[in-house]
Amino acid sequence: MSAGRPRYEAPLRDIGFVLEQWLDAPSDWKRMPAYESLDAPTARMICEAAGQFCGDVLAPLNGGGDLQGCAFDGGTVRTPDGFAAAYRAYVEAGWPALACDPADGGQGLPELLDAVLNEMIVSSNHAWAMYPGLLRGACLCLRAHAPQWIRETYLPHLVRGDWLATMCLTEPQAGSDLGLLRTRARACEDGSHRIEGSKIFISGGDHDLTENIVHLVLARLPDAPSGTKGLSLFLVPKRIPRDEGGWEPNAVHCDGIESKMGIKGSATCTLRFEDARGWLVGEPHRGLAAMFVMMNSARLHVGLQGLGHAEMAYRLALDHARERLEARALPRAEGARGPAGAAGFHAPVGRMLADLRVWTEGMRALGYWAGHLLDQAAHAPDEAGRARARDLAALLTPVIKSFFTERGFSLASEALQVFGGYGYVREYRIEQIVRDSRVAMIYEGTNQIQAMDLLRRKVLAPGAGLEPLLEVLRAEAAAARASAPARPLAEALQAWCERLDDATRALAADAAIDPGLPARAAEDYLRLVGTVALAFAWCRAARVATAAFEDKRESARHFFRYGLLDAEHWLRRIQAARDPEIQRRHP
Amino acid sequence: MSAGRPRYEAPLRDIGFVLEQWLDAPSDWKRMPAYESLDAPTARMICEAAGQFCGDVLAPLNGGGDLQGCAFDGGTVRTPDGFAAAYRAYVEAGWPALACDPADGGQGLPELLDAVLNEMIVSSNHAWAMYPGLLRGACLCLRAHAPQWIRETYLPHLVRGDWLATMCLTEPQAGSDLGLLRTRARACEDGSHRIEGSKIFISGGDHDLTENIVHLVLARLPDAPSGTKGLSLFLVPKRIPRDEGGWEPNAVHCDGIESKMGIKGSATCTLRFEDARGWLVGEPHRGLAAMFVMMNSARLHVGLQGLGHAEMAYRLALDHARERLEARALPRAEGARGPAGAAGFHAPVGRMLADLRVWTEGMRALGYWAGHLLDQAAHAPDEAGRARARDLAALLTPVIKSFFTERGFSLASEALQVFGGYGYVREYRIEQIVRDSRVAMIYEGTNQIQAMDLLRRKVLAPGAGLEPLLEVLRAEAAAARASAPARPLAEALQAWCERLDDATRALAADAAIDPGLPARAAEDYLRLVGTVALAFAWCRAARVATAAFEDKRESARHFFRYGLLDAEHWLRRIQAARDPEIQRRHP
Repeated sequence: MSAGRPRYEAPLRDIGFVLEQWLDAPSDWKRMPAYESLDAPTARMICEAAGQFCGDVLAPLNGGGDLQGCAFDGGTVRTPDGFAAAYRAYVEAGWPALACDPADGGQGLPELLDAVLNEMIVSSNHAWAMYPGLLRGACLCLRAHAPQWIRETYLPHLVRGDWLATMCLTEPQAGSDLGLLRTRARACEDGSHRIEGSKIFISGGDHDLTENIVHLVLARLPDAPSGTKGLSLFLVPKRIPRDEGGWEPNAVHCDGIESKMGIKGSATCTLRFEDARGWLVGEPHRGLAAMFVMMNSARLHVGLQGLGHAEMAYRLALDHARERLEARALPRAEGARGPAGAAGFHAPVGRMLADLRVWTEGMRALGYWAGHLLDQAAHAPDEAGRARARDLAALLTPVIKSFFTERGFSLASEALQVFGGYGYVREYRIEQIVRDSRVAMIYEGTNQIQAMDLLRRKVLAPGAGLEPLLEVLRAEAAAARASAPARPLAEALQAWCERLDDATRALAADAAIDPGLPARAAEDYLRLVGTVALAFAWCRAARVATAAFEDKRESARHFFRYGLLDAEHWLRRIQAARDPEIQRRHP
Repeated sequence: MSAGRPRYEAPLRDIGFVLEQWLDAPSDWKRMPAYESLDAPTARMICEAAGQFCGDVLAPLNGGGDLQGCAFDGGTVRTPDGFAAAYRAYVEAGWPALACDPADGGQGLPELLDAVLNEMIVSSNHAWAMYPGLLRGACLCLRAHAPQWIRETYLPHLVRGDWLATMCLTEPQAGSDLGLLRTRARACEDGSHRIEGSKIFISGGDHDLTENIVHLVLARLPDAPSGTKGLSLFLVPKRIPRDEGGWEPNAVHCDGIESKMGIKGSATCTLRFEDARGWLVGEPHRGLAAMFVMMNSARLHVGLQGLGHAEMAYRLALDHARERLEARALPRAEGARGPAGAAGFHAPVGRMLADLRVWTEGMRALGYWAGHLLDQAAHAPDEAGRARARDLAALLTPVIKSFFTERGFSLASEALQVFGGYGYVREYRIEQIVRDSRVAMIYEGTNQIQAMDLLRRKVLAPGAGLEPLLEVLRAEAAAARASAPARPLAEALQAWCERLDDATRALAADAAIDPGLPARAAEDYLRLVGTVALAFAWCRAARVATAAFEDKRESARHFFRYGLLDAEHWLRRIQAARDPEIQRRHP
């Protein structure tokens, strides 16, 4: 049906709206010395170039990569045709270095633009996106925790992207529960370590894109306490520097790749470290803290995958619905005009497309905001501003990871429904998005883990709390009250801030006498926070949209009318979980 | 992980509970002359044998069929290894004839037991289930509408199952909108017709399971009015009787098969009828009415697919969660016992498993009820009872098709989440259920079409209404009020009957002045009906369960506490759709 149309067109108008109006990022950049020379036209140019790259280079490989998948033969992985060449083009264009520190050879552009780039890459080719997906996090982690010689030896390669990186956590007996990890490390006299153990589900654990792969591996030192407080982080490269110069293979073996539901072009590897040489990154037994730098970056990126899937699913569904409409409106052989096409989309199709549009755009605003907050956390001129941004980013990260990926999958499935029977057929490409998107609810910490992270660690823990987020939402409600187009939404947003605040307080009070409550309520609580945050996103959109973006106000009304009903639902479920009767029966 | 365990074990205990306690079907059978000799032990034996067949013969082919898929070569389809042999075993065991009329060579057993069989077949192998999936409907359709010579020539083959049948509706330009069909038929002098046109998405349009395939094809006669009122139904076999005896090929060509997201072992064919010979079934231009006999049967069966997927997903998730728990409880090399295993399932896993169990069992009660209603519609001793059963079955059919398949998919996805990373890996089999189950929301009329059928045709049309269903639900609430274990649920069920009734009346009143309203509200209305019907199912389960089924009361409480919250949500969405403001903006 869509032959001849580009397989991916970046939604530059919507992206520009978020960057320039919703966030007004250029004004903030001016206040941050690191970005003061960056202006809106330059940012726009970068977005355009990124969209061009994704449309020209990555999107055409997406379907073929899914069909062909990765091959595993004789201990090595072969990626689908074109993946390696696309990666070389990516490196040559300088994309890996986009947001990296200029001190390491990076371009020093904002994380925010890296978030835009990530959305686009995932929309056009999620499987391919997995290979460079952890580069940024690895750079941040090494920069913060690795000794100088490691930074000097490895960071320039990673920043340029001529090496890639992995994160090696999961073992067969330990998925969500990292305390059960068994991989061991023992110190050698030269200061290096020997790593022994097996890791599973390692994305890009082996591939033919780069000569070297830098594995960041959690393992236990001999004197390590049990549980997560006994994990240390090691850098274990596929190839290691030889004393006499050059590089030699390390004892890191790929034992196989998984056959998966989706992202088939991404090699999900089982790695065996057989007394492999590694080097400690950060303090002994403090590996999890060091790796969290990487994981937080990775979790935001996974959340953006949900956005990328929703965006692509929306565009495919919209194109398909329009083509069907046109086909029906055409005079046919019989001379009849299809009654189906007469009044625009059928009501259910129109409703599904509106949902897709409104959720996708709302997620984009929140997701980019999180990226912008990372920039503010690092570069805001005052410490108070940096701390505030850090707190907000910490709160938003699990929400974005979990809520966006859940929505990415369900919206992709809704988009598939727009296609009718065609949606189930591979060549229409939407079913691949459903399959690809499903993994994002699982990896980098399942969505259940994210929910516990939000409620237990970020909200209920001593000294923590939802206040930084509520403050921003309440400020928006106040501003919206003074704005004619957003005023009708301000009251509802304000009311939901209070209900969310009340629910949080009630959970905190009850959790003190019922320690199992947070685990029962966490997922619905995360969804409630996500839904209210989306209401915030749309309230602000309605307030700041210029006349050329009147459609955003229409979408805002749609969200407040239908989408916000979800918040009622999550709140009721949280209340049901608080019922002491339930507490007794489902301890 | 599950090596050595059977790949499918029929949930005989839960099935028996529905048949003997929830429905008390044996008592009804005694009152129906057609089934008076059938008793509970016999029914139990049949269910056991069906479970055995599915576990031994069909389930082992499910994963391989998915990997291998169908092959298309030189105009013919080759099904996956083992599919044809399994089908021969199915025919030899007499399963196709189970619920067929003894006058045609059938066993004359209840549709209810056919529903049980269908759940089991889909749980063990959905792709394979597609081949005999339309047999029952084709028999019913031909029995009701075909001239005698067709019945005599074709029905015995279909009842025995040595031929299979298809339903040929969809064309490239006409999916949900059958009025746009273009396939043409012209009369020949000998009373046969010549059929010319193309059909797509024909399940089992060609295969190597049987020698002949009986296509039931919608086409237009030359003098046909446009739209759906100009469609006639034709029997167009793959092989036709030769005047001199024997059979010769008809001009029905398979032009290809679809590459799909799931049910890969099922051949989804494009068929080209090139002046193929066919015979009219039913009246000219009344083909849709004739085919509806087939479609109603098919829609119920598709709804049962949602049940079959949910059941299988639940069992896989439960097994996996238990194995993980056991693995953690084992003393390990370190001498530590995993903290994760200490207190049973993690809260999120426990909650997902409880949801899976409660929804699956509730759907089973409703789904089997629909099967039982078909038996009562045909065989109840009094006409009033037959009419009442017909009305109820008509109301329930779209609900079961749409609500069950939506749930089957989302529950399969929830079960996948229980597996963590393993869920995304093919060998753990749960991802196949997610892929396979997705199609059921589309075919036999998309879920959107079902919703319109329920609200517009079955509820709001003159002379129609939800009353037959409400009557049953209210009677249950009244009975439950008199029962100690169900009393706490009776009030909520009664309240929801009234709210559903009110919502229906309000929709009817508003629709009179706002004709677009039903289309906007239909999907949420169907979900509301489905959710309240599930509350009915659980209320009755709590009321009738014997002491040995105390777990059903626990599940009933879980549903009323959490599941019924959904009803609130659907009701609010219906109310939002009724808002005149929306009406103005989203016409």
